[in-house]
Amino acid sequence: MEAVDRLPTFADVAAAAERLGGVAVATPLLESAALNQRVGGRVLLKAEPLQHTGSFKFRGAYNTISQIDAAAVVAYSSGNHAQGVARAARLLGRRATIVMPADAPAIKLAHTRADGAEVRLYDRQGESREAIGAEIAAATGAVLIRPYDDARIIAGQGTVGLELAEQARAAGAIPDAALIPCGGGGLIAGCSLALAELCPGIEIHAVEPAAFDDTRRSLAAGARLANPAGSRSICDALLVPSPGELTFELNRRLLAGGLVAGDAEVRQALAFAFRHLKLVVEPGGAVALAALLAGAFDARNRTVAVVLSGGNVDPALFAAALGEPAAG
Amino acid sequence: MEAVDRLPTFADVAAAAERLGGVAVATPLLESAALNQRVGGRVLLKAEPLQHTGSFKFRGAYNTISQIDAAAVVAYSSGNHAQGVARAARLLGRRATIVMPADAPAIKLAHTRADGAEVRLYDRQGESREAIGAEIAAATGAVLIRPYDDARIIAGQGTVGLELAEQARAAGAIPDAALIPCGGGGLIAGCSLALAELCPGIEIHAVEPAAFDDTRRSLAAGARLANPAGSRSICDALLVPSPGELTFELNRRLLAGGLVAGDAEVRQALAFAFRHLKLVVEPGGAVALAALLAGAFDARNRTVAVVLSGGNVDPALFAAALGEPAAG
Repeated sequence: MEAVDRLPTFADVAAAAERLGGVAVATPLLESAALNQRVGGRVLLKAEPLQHTGSFKFRGAYNTISQIDAAAVVAYSSGNHAQGVARAARLLGRRATIVMPADAPAIKLAHTRADGAEVRLYDRQGESREAIGAEIAAATGAVLIRPYDDARIIAGQGTVGLELAEQARAAGAIPDAALIPCGGGGLIAGCSLALAELCPGIEIHAVEPAAFDDTRRSLAAGARLANPAGSRSICDALLVPSPGELTFELNRRLLAGGLVAGDAEVRQALAFAFRHLKLVVEPGGAVALAALLAGAFDARNRTVAVVLSGGNVDPALFAAALGEPAAG
Repeated sequence: MEAVDRLPTFADVAAAAERLGGVAVATPLLESAALNQRVGGRVLLKAEPLQHTGSFKFRGAYNTISQIDAAAVVAYSSGNHAQGVARAARLLGRRATIVMPADAPAIKLAHTRADGAEVRLYDRQGESREAIGAEIAAATGAVLIRPYDDARIIAGQGTVGLELAEQARAAGAIPDAALIPCGGGGLIAGCSLALAELCPGIEIHAVEPAAFDDTRRSLAAGARLANPAGSRSICDALLVPSPGELTFELNRRLLAGGLVAGDAEVRQALAFAFRHLKLVVEPGGAVALAALLAGAFDARNRTVAVVLSGGNVDPALFAAALGEPAAG
């Protein structure tokens, strides 16, 4: 079985941490007196907006590309995976082509290009990104870097959880629960491998946008379920049709369940992070904090790890969120 | 001579670091590929918005109050010093009274009260905060915690520089210049004690708002000069009438000179930090970054440490800054 198609283990996460040592940012684990007081527990916040390219995606991209021989890689993404792959490819001296929708946010196109990637725009309506990617691969020998259904991607994202467990221990805390944003499920699957190993008994919840709770429903059903067509959410980083194959296989074994947060709750979490954490968090990156603030998880007298997974947010959306009723 | 009135030394900064160990946040030293590329050098950003209470002020307050026997303290401040003293007093089990102007920002009043401090409001026009403070001290035995002209305050703030030097070394970098925000001068004086010791030959510049360049002019003149009456700036954390006595005595020995940034440049720095660093920085906290981005300091082929000193910014001001022409 190819590395890409097998289930990763804790050893893969530990190996990824070795590869990423001195390359990825060991993002800080933050605490907020205001947040602890509000929820009646101890909350440890893993600050991935401070990662290279503003999200955890750099970790998996670097871990994967560093294990590939090809001189060129290709990826499909409208956002954080694009930037993560572009930066990792640049650091590793590979050519990167990113297939992005023509209507992707200008800031994400600009940042992807700034890292030296070639951006191939496509029309969401009239073109197939898979076909374009296959053409590019055939023409250049580029290897496709999947966004989450790859053992190396999952292991790389898992270094978030590995660091979190080590930093919590150094702070004298043992998390008994973790709330982690979930789109395709790579971040939470990898983190869960690390947390299950290093914090035995920890209760891990996937947190999704209310309209994209495919993992929550799939966990309850014991099988991969899709989201209804036409669903909408401001959490652009978490919009997938259904859980990944590898990721769900891990998540159904390792997770306690799923929680959701609505758009209004996510906006309030952005405002809370602005006011109390001084961090810029994007909607998808704030979904776990949003669920906690909204009371979807009872943190009283518990130690709860919360992953803030990214900070690539449109300025207008962010400014509007600051005008919401104060969240704390 | 009382501790408060003598000049602190590097040994005082090292002792402050011992007191603050495990109490203050060891804030991360960040790097941005976009910033390095833009200025043609290597920039190391010390992220004090992530400190308790959102600014470096907690460090000096804790270092000072932990050396005082009194059960109660009092301070004058409309902003970051208020919050730093309130939090430090709470952690150390002391009562705190903060004398704040009745027109202080609601968010700063709320945060100060949230840390258990008693807030005594006064009318900027009709009342003397010094007289009110003296009354409180006489009535309660509270000890006044000065904002910058105190050896213990300066030493506490200096732990920013101590950490910065150690973190830079761990990252394989030796800063040859440092740009540090300057109001009363406590932060830069303390940092300079540490940097002069740990990074010999480093060139340190105070950065001030353009209309409040008292330290820059005082350094050039060799004597403490005041700012003209009626000066205005959005950098509310840096608005002092003239350099402190102790701080200027240190700064005139340790600094290479002073730089300034105007309000428009500061707003662009806020937008840059939002976009590329994912950090919420307040105007006064961003003044050194603003000067660097505006070209006031030539960073080409140099390694430059920049202190981001705080993040307590009004949401409306921040949102407006995000509407500025993109800074990067």
